Amino acid sequence: MIHYNPKDWFTFIFHIHKGDTFRKLWPLMISISIFSAFVAFLELNVFKLSKSDYVSNIGMMHSLLGFVISMLLVFRTNTSYDRWWEGRRLLGALTNVSRNFAMKIKALNLPDEEIRFFEYGIPKYAFALKEHLREKKYFGKNSFLIEVEESKHIPNQIASSMISRLYELTRKGYISQEQLIVLTNDVNQFTDICGGCERIKNTPIPFSYSVFIKKFIFIYVLTIPIGWVFSLGYYLVLIVPFILYVLASLELIAEEIEDPFGYDPNDLPVDQISNNIEKHIEEILN
Amino acid sequence: MIHYNPKDWFTFIFHIHKGDTFRKLWPLMISISIFSAFVAFLELNVFKLSKSDYVSNIGMMHSLLGFVISMLLVFRTNTSYDRWWEGRRLLGALTNVSRNFAMKIKALNLPDEEIRFFEYGIPKYAFALKEHLREKKYFGKNSFLIEVEESKHIPNQIASSMISRLYELTRKGYISQEQLIVLTNDVNQFTDICGGCERIKNTPIPFSYSVFIKKFIFIYVLTIPIGWVFSLGYYLVLIVPFILYVLASLELIAEEIEDPFGYDPNDLPVDQISNNIEKHIEEILN
Amino acid sequence: MIHYNPKDWFTFIFHIHKGDTFRKLWPLMISISIFSAFVAFLELNVFKLSKSDYVSNIGMMHSLLGFVISMLLVFRTNTSYDRWWEGRRLLGALTNVSRNFAMKIKALNLPDEEIRFFEYGIPKYAFALKEHLREKKYFGKNSFLIEVEESKHIPNQIASSMISRLYELTRKGYISQEQLIVLTNDVNQFTDICGGCERIKNTPIPFSYSVFIKKFIFIYVLTIPIGWVFSLGYYLVLIVPFILYVLASLELIAEEIEDPFGYDPNDLPVDQISNNIEKHIEEILN
Amino acid sequence: MIHYNPKDWFTFIFHIHKGDTFRKLWPLMISISIFSAFVAFLELNVFKLSKSDYVSNIGMMHSLLGFVISMLLVFRTNTSYDRWWEGRRLLGALTNVSRNFAMKIKALNLPDEEIRFFEYGIPKYAFALKEHLREKKYFGKNSFLIEVEESKHIPNQIASSMISRLYELTRKGYISQEQLIVLTNDVNQFTDICGGCERIKNTPIPFSYSVFIKKFIFIYVLTIPIGWVFSLGYYLVLIVPFILYVLASLELIAEEIEDPFGYDPNDLPVDQISNNIEKHIEEILN
Amino acid sequence: MIHYNPKDWFTFIFHIHKGDTFRKLWPLMISISIFSAFVAFLELNVFKLSKSDYVSNIGMMHSLLGFVISMLLVFRTNTSYDRWWEGRRLLGALTNVSRNFAMKIKALNLPDEEIRFFEYGIPKYAFALKEHLREKKYFGKNSFLIEVEESKHIPNQIASSMISRLYELTRKGYISQEQLIVLTNDVNQFTDICGGCERIKNTPIPFSYSVFIKKFIFIYVLTIPIGWVFSLGYYLVLIVPFILYVLASLELIAEEIEDPFGYDPNDLPVDQISNNIEKHIEEILN
Repeated sequence: MIHYNPKDWFTFIFHIHKGDTFRKLWPLMISISIFSAFVAFLELNVFKLSKSDYVSNIGMMHSLLGFVISMLLVFRTNTSYDRWWEGRRLLGALTNVSRNFAMKIKALNLPDEEIRFFEYGIPKYAFALKEHLREKKYFGKNSFLIEVEESKHIPNQIASSMISRLYELTRKGYISQEQLIVLTNDVNQFTDICGGCERIKNTPIPFSYSVFIKKFIFIYVLTIPIGWVFSLGYYLVLIVPFILYVLASLELIAEEIEDPFGYDPNDLPVDQISNNIEKHIEEILN
Repeated sequence: MIHYNPKDWFTFIFHIHKGDTFRKLWPLMISISIFSAFVAFLELNVFKLSKSDYVSNIGMMHSLLGFVISMLLVFRTNTSYDRWWEGRRLLGALTNVSRNFAMKIKALNLPDEEIRFFEYGIPKYAFALKEHLREKKYFGKNSFLIEVEESKHIPNQIASSMISRLYELTRKGYISQEQLIVLTNDVNQFTDICGGCERIKNTPIPFSYSVFIKKFIFIYVLTIPIGWVFSLGYYLVLIVPFILYVLASLELIAEEIEDPFGYDPNDLPVDQISNNIEKHIEEILN
Repeated sequence: MIHYNPKDWFTFIFHIHKGDTFRKLWPLMISISIFSAFVAFLELNVFKLSKSDYVSNIGMMHSLLGFVISMLLVFRTNTSYDRWWEGRRLLGALTNVSRNFAMKIKALNLPDEEIRFFEYGIPKYAFALKEHLREKKYFGKNSFLIEVEESKHIPNQIASSMISRLYELTRKGYISQEQLIVLTNDVNQFTDICGGCERIKNTPIPFSYSVFIKKFIFIYVLTIPIGWVFSLGYYLVLIVPFILYVLASLELIAEEIEDPFGYDPNDLPVDQISNNIEKHIEEILN
Repeated sequence: MIHYNPKDWFTFIFHIHKGDTFRKLWPLMISISIFSAFVAFLELNVFKLSKSDYVSNIGMMHSLLGFVISMLLVFRTNTSYDRWWEGRRLLGALTNVSRNFAMKIKALNLPDEEIRFFEYGIPKYAFALKEHLREKKYFGKNSFLIEVEESKHIPNQIASSMISRLYELTRKGYISQEQLIVLTNDVNQFTDICGGCERIKNTPIPFSYSVFIKKFIFIYVLTIPIGWVFSLGYYLVLIVPFILYVLASLELIAEEIEDPFGYDPNDLPVDQISNNIEKHIEEILN
Repeated sequence: MIHYNPKDWFTFIFHIHKGDTFRKLWPLMISISIFSAFVAFLELNVFKLSKSDYVSNIGMMHSLLGFVISMLLVFRTNTSYDRWWEGRRLLGALTNVSRNFAMKIKALNLPDEEIRFFEYGIPKYAFALKEHLREKKYFGKNSFLIEVEESKHIPNQIASSMISRLYELTRKGYISQEQLIVLTNDVNQFTDICGGCERIKNTPIPFSYSVFIKKFIFIYVLTIPIGWVFSLGYYLVLIVPFILYVLASLELIAEEIEDPFGYDPNDLPVDQISNNIEKHIEEILN
């Protein structure tokens, strides 16, 4: 994630930042610009069509469908943003649960070795989840405390060994039955958060919408020059790329933030959140 | 569900995929194209109406109602997507609850035969629910562990036998009263998820909306050529089908994802989710 | 509720079903058609106004307010649909809670007579709620098990006698304190669901919106012919009723589904849900 | 709150009800009508500007900003309605919690005097909350049972004395530890509901939006006559007030329902809800 | 936060308040006004372009993209408002939890010194959170009761010492195991609220949207004069700044309320809420 000051308009407008869709779109914008020039040349200079020709009214279609395309893009923007924000919410919940769980572990007056176990296990879950969502394997430092098998679901193994430890401590009398309910519930929340993140990661918006929006933008923008050439002449080479920039940017940003756990500039600060969890757990349990 | 890379624009635009609404709509698009040609022929060549005729202004109605139709389609899109996403959420919750339940069963140090019972029962619930939502009956492999009657609600029977087993284990002293609360709550969540899926499956959007949107699109598109013929001439045979494609696609995709548990290309990956549950439960309990 | 196949476009478009707003609107549509003809006659034949007259530009107002009216109708549609869907959600929750409660009752190994009590009481609550929402009194078959007074809130009496029975069974030692919490919570959910349904039923959208939308549609549609007559002539007699049909249908459907517990064709399948609860409870407890 | 039949269109359209925004807006509508006449007189008769003058195109700005103003009003409408509905939800929750709490109190077989205490205390909370939200003090009938100090937060005092009573009854052995958790949780919900209502009451939408929307509507409507006079002449004196009526009504209704606990005609039926709670609690505990 | 009477239209419209975006935008508005005059001078007086020139139709682009820009601004407005309202909700929850926790502490009949500890600790949490969200350190009055280290997360330390105290009191026999669950849960909610506020504070909307909206508004407004000059002449110097005012205000207000815990005029009344918590806790525990 890029940290920025949202009130600094000047650099926003004149710089082209890392996350700027302009970087990705300029080849397409130049192509569409050349295409527009070509259409204008054909219609105005080769076929010498005039404003009275039927072709000049094709823009009526673009006006009529202008509502539909903008509403569709807003639908796309809303759903992607909701996923991104839900992802952020889940990572925030991970922070909260980790802290709450650690505070209770601390208050329980467990033997030191047990506290070390959880001081190690809680941030390990966060790191393992992070790598799991990026399709990597995480084993963690001094992994002898919780051993995980590479071929199995790693966050599940960590959660499962924490739960087993809690039950064991209950049998040994360190934790009451009532405490066990509360502590198990916390670990279950780890798994719920993991499931929520997996759901966001594995389920992009339905395939048909993805295809339909792209097809629609493509045909829409490509047919604009045909009708508008009679009103705008060669100015099309500037105007059509700008329209493309606006419409395609919305789709591009939506694609990027839809899976918010990766390395894209707009993705969530997953690394920073994991590091914070590690730092806070250490603060609480030491 | 189709797995795809949402960033691959090229194949999206030029291929016609399995889930593409174009496949379903092309016969209708050709019909409307012929109809448009016929209207154009009638008005331009037979009746020889001119642009000064009142008929040429019928497009005013289409502009005015253009807002309404696009907002209605966005309403339709939003509600269908919400159901689809709620369905995904419920299946994700099924995964989470299954894992959490299994982790607790593991930590309880039950006799091996009891662990086998739940190792069998938990994924069985997922498979039974899947088939139940597709209106099939599921009995599962080595069904002697949990016997179900075909005439009764199958997921309910599985949940009920898990709950009864938990109470029995409590009476035998393997599970404390406090544990029982937590474990029963997990099985209750299975039933809640089942009820949520049944609700989505059995309740499409109100009949009146469904009728109204279809009637509205149909009349709207069919009357476009009448007024636009004076501005667009025979280009109508390309433009009107494209407008139909845009409007009807939104309704078609909405219809498809509204009941997300079937076999449609955009439906949820129900099979994969059930298999994952089976795999994870085995990983945890073995 | 009407059960239908949402993919069957053909019959949707050409049949006029029971829930179709066209049935209710046709008298109004004919009136507005005659009114439009009258306006056209006055302006074109009596006063012989021409397109250069100021009156012909009144349509500017309709374009400007076109956004507002369509957004308002979408607001109306969204809020009504949300209530309808929340109603469905509450009834779904009733099914879930009934099943979960019954499964736990079964697992408790209570004396047979106690099981009969709940087998009778749970579906009775569903039926009583249904009738309560339709402003009828329900006493149920063999009502001697739970006696209710007609003058008091019937679902409350049933819930209250179930709760009292649970406490009694706890005092007799059949149910542990921990179980009691869980079971009481289930019965409390019955009351929450009842309260939620009562809230939807008793609180239509604020009076001012209801008045304002109706007034707005009425004035909007009635003034359309005044300005459009110069562009559309006597075609108004077809076009204005269609615009009315579109705008008023949205308001009409919204009104119908706003209180979803009645007998309207779009209302929720309350009877079927109650019957299902009875069937499933019997399956579980027998 | 006004009780009404949402299907009775006729009286809605022709009567001017108590909650009708027309009542509040007519002086403003007449002023704007006179202003429009004055602008028309100046431009048409004094300066004798013609349609070819630049001034006549100022309407382009109104078209462009027409989207923005209508979307802004819908944003305003949505947020106000959400607050109103959340308020309704909170009052509904108050009803539910009161009933559930009473049912449990009844089932506990407490000494009669204790039951009297809660029969008095539960509805008292509802009445005290109602008056608290209207910035009045409530002491209630036979207030000796729960004494409240006027200078302190009254609903808090009632809730606190109920909680203290529950703990006392636990120490006396009438209530088990498990019951206490559940009962305390119910009383905590009273406080949560109170906090939720206070939040809605004390936090109108951000000041800047409130100012911005009003300024925007005002300038927007006031500048309409300047450009439209060349198309609509003196018809402006009817059209501009109608546009004002539509735009300002939405803002006015939003203002009214934003704080839904007062005495406005669209406010929630707070009195009736409190009375219902009193009635139902009496039914349950007697 | 500014306290205001939302029904006082007059002062809203004619005063320029502290939170008014006009204060921030007037330099930009004057610049754009001069720029518009310059464009008009160039096109009308230097190049002497006429309405038949292609340049005069550039406004077509602005109409087409008018939908997109207004929907984008509404998306921006909605998401910012949601964050603001979620922030308010969290602070409201802080009030509720503080009160509920205090009521239970009171009912527990703890030794006086313990009550003093919580009477001190609960409001301290609120103040510490407030300062934490404003990136300040808070130590509080007579801080010897709960000692915090400056270098660590301060609210966490307060929560942790409250939890440890509760466990200690349980070990000493003042609090039962069941009570401990409930009380710990309350303190955990403090941490959840803190995490929620941190999430809102640290995660502005994705960088790409922020850049894109600003770039879009900037280019959109700057190109308006080029095409509109032929219709509006030098009136542009008034109209273009007004359009800028409308579009940029929405972005500016959204920026301001996005992080609602600061000192901006539209930010939440964080100080007042903390003071109220202190006052109410004192009322309850004294």
